[in-house]
Amino acid sequence: MDSALKVNQGIPKPPEINPRASDILKKKPAGSREVSTYLEGIRNKDISILAQAITLIESTREEDREKARELVSACLPFSGDSIRIGITGVPGVGKSTFIETFGKHITDSGHRLAVLAIDPSSERSKGSILGDKTRMETLANDPHAFIRPSPSGGSLGGVARKTREAVLLCEAAGFDTIFIETVGVGQSETAVHSMTDFFLLLMLAGAGDGLQGIKRGIMEMSDLLVINKADGNNVEKALQAKSLYQGALHLFPPSPSGWIPTALTASSTEGTGMEKILESVTAYINLTRKNGYFEEKRAQQAIFWMRESINNHLISRFYDNPRIKKALPKMEQKVKEGQTDSFKAASELLKLL
Amino acid sequence: MDSALKVNQGIPKPPEINPRASDILKKKPAGSREVSTYLEGIRNKDISILAQAITLIESTREEDREKARELVSACLPFSGDSIRIGITGVPGVGKSTFIETFGKHITDSGHRLAVLAIDPSSERSKGSILGDKTRMETLANDPHAFIRPSPSGGSLGGVARKTREAVLLCEAAGFDTIFIETVGVGQSETAVHSMTDFFLLLMLAGAGDGLQGIKRGIMEMSDLLVINKADGNNVEKALQAKSLYQGALHLFPPSPSGWIPTALTASSTEGTGMEKILESVTAYINLTRKNGYFEEKRAQQAIFWMRESINNHLISRFYDNPRIKKALPKMEQKVKEGQTDSFKAASELLKLL
Repeated sequence: MDSALKVNQGIPKPPEINPRASDILKKKPAGSREVSTYLEGIRNKDISILAQAITLIESTREEDREKARELVSACLPFSGDSIRIGITGVPGVGKSTFIETFGKHITDSGHRLAVLAIDPSSERSKGSILGDKTRMETLANDPHAFIRPSPSGGSLGGVARKTREAVLLCEAAGFDTIFIETVGVGQSETAVHSMTDFFLLLMLAGAGDGLQGIKRGIMEMSDLLVINKADGNNVEKALQAKSLYQGALHLFPPSPSGWIPTALTASSTEGTGMEKILESVTAYINLTRKNGYFEEKRAQQAIFWMRESINNHLISRFYDNPRIKKALPKMEQKVKEGQTDSFKAASELLKLL
Repeated sequence: MDSALKVNQGIPKPPEINPRASDILKKKPAGSREVSTYLEGIRNKDISILAQAITLIESTREEDREKARELVSACLPFSGDSIRIGITGVPGVGKSTFIETFGKHITDSGHRLAVLAIDPSSERSKGSILGDKTRMETLANDPHAFIRPSPSGGSLGGVARKTREAVLLCEAAGFDTIFIETVGVGQSETAVHSMTDFFLLLMLAGAGDGLQGIKRGIMEMSDLLVINKADGNNVEKALQAKSLYQGALHLFPPSPSGWIPTALTASSTEGTGMEKILESVTAYINLTRKNGYFEEKRAQQAIFWMRESINNHLISRFYDNPRIKKALPKMEQKVKEGQTDSFKAASELLKLL
């Protein structure tokens, strides 16, 4: 795996310093520093400053937003040098434990790992993720790992933007592997898919078991299926599931990446299967770097987020308007009941502004 | 199949008249009639008037748009009583022949069938569909069938709107079965999925054969896979493919409809397999009518198209602005090359207006 994940080779790195060096400054509120101070801290791998910088990014205060934009721009030249891995799976599939174990495997291999999440408030009730770091104690205490819960509150668009900006900051802080996790029951997995290089779907053995409630289409988006909890009495069942899914994946439409998605088994509690998963990620990265898909996808993703951000802005400005807010529920009711058609209703609402 | 597709039972129908009765009026340009004349013609199952009414809907002239909206509203109370079936499959899969054969089977069973298409200009080059009616000669000459090529030109949003409105008009004209076909290589299959009750994916035997270029995620959206061209030397292979896919479909996340998607074989040239396909559609409709999913999905779709229409309007107004048109390509280039980040670029473009 070394060659692929070490994308930083040849790029000069800032000196290693004690990541807790800035603990004495910790008490300062987010947003109170200069952009240059944040940048310096980030480049010096000071994860306390990094955490504060992410808080700045998450702030909704207009002055913080301006500073946050400057900071992201300043970090941009130092970003991009990581492998971004999306991890999804419904509650109960063992996502936290998997991230702990797989994450430890990655830091043990000499990498620096940042774990982020997309978990819009609307989806939180469906299965909290990264709700608190105590669920990932080993990783939380690993000096080569950085765990950041999902930005709280707000729409998917807002949460996704914050997470994508956090990725850039983490990369500027020298993290060469990024996990972005999501619960996969709503819209957020598409967002995660649109900001990662590799998409991993965690499942359980037994048809449907690990998939209750997961959104249709996610399986076909995945680059790797991992049948988790392949331990104890479950090993046989997991291996059967693996070979069933392996067969099914060959029936899927070929991916534009040229990669044929695969299925593997793992036990997060026993730590088995991690090396193979990493090998799979590495093989994917090697393939797509070679055929140009890696860079092309990154460029497309950057354009996607620009447009997504514009569209979100235009759309929320409309729906946040008090006149629309007042008229919308009634209009939706009429549309639902077939009293008016969708396009006429749209045109009437648009006329209100 | 009778019970499910006959959703019109009990609903009084306008009298059967000669569908070509208005041929004498044919020469009048679209848009020249009163709304009441269109409505009367449509309710009288005059397919010549129906065709002209759809031309009105497709018109981009503002006065036609106003009249079209009125007409759609007038047809709305008479719409909804059909089974809407989305049919997708890449070029070469035998879509036209399938629609001919399956369509004939449906009209022979006493139903009236309208065949529409979504084929935005951007996707047309990838495989023209319904490009001309001569590819469906039998159906084109069937008095119980109405074939309408995809509205030409324009964005997916525009084409989708026109097709959805055409569905309502066809239903008001007493068509109880609607096919909406799409080529499935771009975004349009999502649009078709969002305006149909049942989604059928046509495929060929041989892993990947019928799927080259099809969008990922479509298979998981489908309610039925049909392995086409199961004839001659191909029968064995098609049956194998069927059972492979059948197995794979059980591994998919369960659909919120409660329906377990299935795979079937068919030969459009020999006419085999059509009855089973119709049985499958019927079973789906019966199930979802019983569990409430049918009506719920229709209501959700109506809301979806209202919002989609609003969003499209807001977004195109932005991108059609000359200042944005001028600035966009340069900005996209900068974003692609990593010279600026997506969100800053978005915010700069938004500031231009």
